[in-house]
This record gives sequence, C-alpha cells and structure tokens, in this order.
Amino acid sequence: MGKTLLGPQTLIYPMPTLLVGTHVDDKPNFMTVAWSGIANAEPPMISIAIRHNRYTHKGICQNLTFSINVPSTDLVKETDYCGSVSGSKVNKAEVCRFKVFYGKLNGAPLIEQCPINLECKVVHILDLGSHSLVIGGIEETHLSDACLTDGKPDVNKIRPFIYTRTPSQEYVAFGQVIGKAYSIGKELRARE
Amino acid sequence: MGKTLLGPQTLIYPMPTLLVGTHVDDKPNFMTVAWSGIANAEPPMISIAIRHNRYTHKGICQNLTFSINVPSTDLVKETDYCGSVSGSKVNKAEVCRFKVFYGKLNGAPLIEQCPINLECKVVHILDLGSHSLVIGGIEETHLSDACLTDGKPDVNKIRPFIYTRTPSQEYVAFGQVIGKAYSIGKELRARE
Repeated sequence: MGKTLLGPQTLIYPMPTLLVGTHVDDKPNFMTVAWSGIANAEPPMISIAIRHNRYTHKGICQNLTFSINVPSTDLVKETDYCGSVSGSKVNKAEVCRFKVFYGKLNGAPLIEQCPINLECKVVHILDLGSHSLVIGGIEETHLSDACLTDGKPDVNKIRPFIYTRTPSQEYVAFGQVIGKAYSIGKELRARE
Repeated sequence: MGKTLLGPQTLIYPMPTLLVGTHVDDKPNFMTVAWSGIANAEPPMISIAIRHNRYTHKGICQNLTFSINVPSTDLVKETDYCGSVSGSKVNKAEVCRFKVFYGKLNGAPLIEQCPINLECKVVHILDLGSHSLVIGGIEETHLSDACLTDGKPDVNKIRPFIYTRTPSQEYVAFGQVIGKAYSIGKELRARE
C-alpha cells in the first residue's frame, strides 16, 4: 500500500463539536470548538485550543473559568452558527435562544438545551503559536435528566455528533456499533 | 428540563481512537489512546494524555518522538487489543501483524495498515496528576494512496471510528451527515 506525504497537518478523526461558554465583559458568550480532548483523569481535566484573537479567549483570560457544553444533533444549526460568527458582533446566546444557567463557577455560563455541561476552572494556558491550549479542571458535571438511563449518562439519548473535514467540512451523527471495547480484541491473544 | 449533578467527570463525546507509536528500549510499541485532541494550527500540534506508568510513557520520555496512527474500522480488533495489553509483556506489533515503517523521525514507528500516520516531536510534557499531557509538533503526515480523492484525504475511504462510553464502552462507526459546516447555521442570521 503506497503512502503520500502531505506535510505537517492536524489530521485526526473524529473531532468533537463542543460549545465553550465564557463571560466576556460580563456577558455570556458561546463558541464552537473541535480542537479539544480529555487531558487528565485525577483530577479530571480537559484541553481546548483557541486562537489568541478570539472573543472567547478574551473571556477566558478575564475570568479564568469556562464551560463545555455538549450539543445533541437537534442543536446542529445553533452549533454551526456559534462557530461561524463572533460574539464581538452579535449576542449568540440570544440568537440561538439558549436558556443560560449557572452552577458553582462565576463566568461559566451553561446551556440548558445541551445534555452535558461541564464547569471548568483554568489550570494552565499554554501559548503554542497560533493558539492557546487552555487546560481546565472540571469542577462539576450537569446532565439532563432526560439523558439518564439507570442513573447514568446514555449516549443514545445524548445524541452527540462529530465534526469532520475532508473532502468537505460536515457534522456527522454516530453510526453503528462495530465492537465492544476491551472485548473485541481478545481473540488476538491466541497469537501471543 | 431538569439536570442531575454527577460531580467532576471527563464526559465529552466523541473521543477518537488513535494508535500511539513509540520505541521503548529500541523496540516499536503501540498503545491505543482516546484522550487526544488537536492543540495548535501554526505550527501543527496534537496533545495526548498518558498515565505515567504506561510503557508508552517510558518510550516517549526516552526518545521525545512518537507517532499517531488513525486506524480504520477494519482494524477495530487490533486497536482494541493495543488498548488492552501492555507492551511490557507482549510484542503488540507482531501480534497485530502491523507492517511498521519509518519516516524522518527516529523512535516514531508508523503502521502501514493505518490510513493516516503523523510523525510527532515532543514540544511539552505537562504533569497534570494521574496523566502526562504530551504535546507533539506534527512533523510529517503520511496518507495511504487508497484513501485519497483528487489528491486529498477522503474520510469515506479512511473510515475512522469513535470510542464511546456510557452506558457501555464501544467503538462506533461514523453515521449520517447531519449538516454542512459553516452553512447549516446560516439561517439563524435572520434572527440577528
């Protein structure tokens, strides 16, 4: 199988679509990010990469708190909108008709319509070049009651989605289960 | 819509399933990670979170280089296997019958069967508690020729997959397109 060199590219799949909530100049604002990942287990932390000139970057630096809101597929238009326009020009929370609520952290507005809301406190901000990598300690997790099954989060009710690129930039729903983790690979142990 | 508090949890969707390649004591080894994200655009960087006691952690510290390999759905068993056993006990590359090749970086073994291979050089290692957040500069990208369309990566040929949790830990294929990015949200502009 031949390979083609593409030069250095940020090419991984899948990427999430998450709504980052901040206060900027004391008003709630939301921005869509796809460059994010879990950063630590104990204590729980998440990382998000944000360009220095973004309005949300300003809000994170002002408050040192932010939220992560996981949208479901029925919020795909709102999620796209929040990734396409700047909060310096419009009130995105109003346009999207988000019901904003708060937990324990000031400056971390949460979206009621999103099934999952994480309240985060900044632990590190790393300037990596074009972006800051913001590492946030997760202080609290809110889950919509409608997305619980037996008291636990149920991905089939949460209905999160993926951001994908190449050949075109699209949002994609979760598809079929192709295997159980920590199980489907067991048959390879016979080759050890 | 009511909300339930779950305490601090690393709860985001989707997470990727990536195979991290390193040399440990001069031998290639691969580990599956789901805690990863793009960290910077210019220059291109990626982050991965790895527990301190992992064999791969040792290899990254020895070489300060590593690879990221994006598996396709037909490698789900191998991916699960590489996330379930330690390279300190078995030669995972052999068990999985990976064809290993190299690019420009020593200590960054690449898997030919994976459609995407990134060669990375360590930029930062942050000790966050249970995990190190390893930030790697992407030095080169290899793409299988069979996954190109008009010279560009084609996600429909790459066929990456998702790691998901709750209610059960599973691998999930990509599903239906639910919207075009930077497009489907445009209708909300009428509300500005």
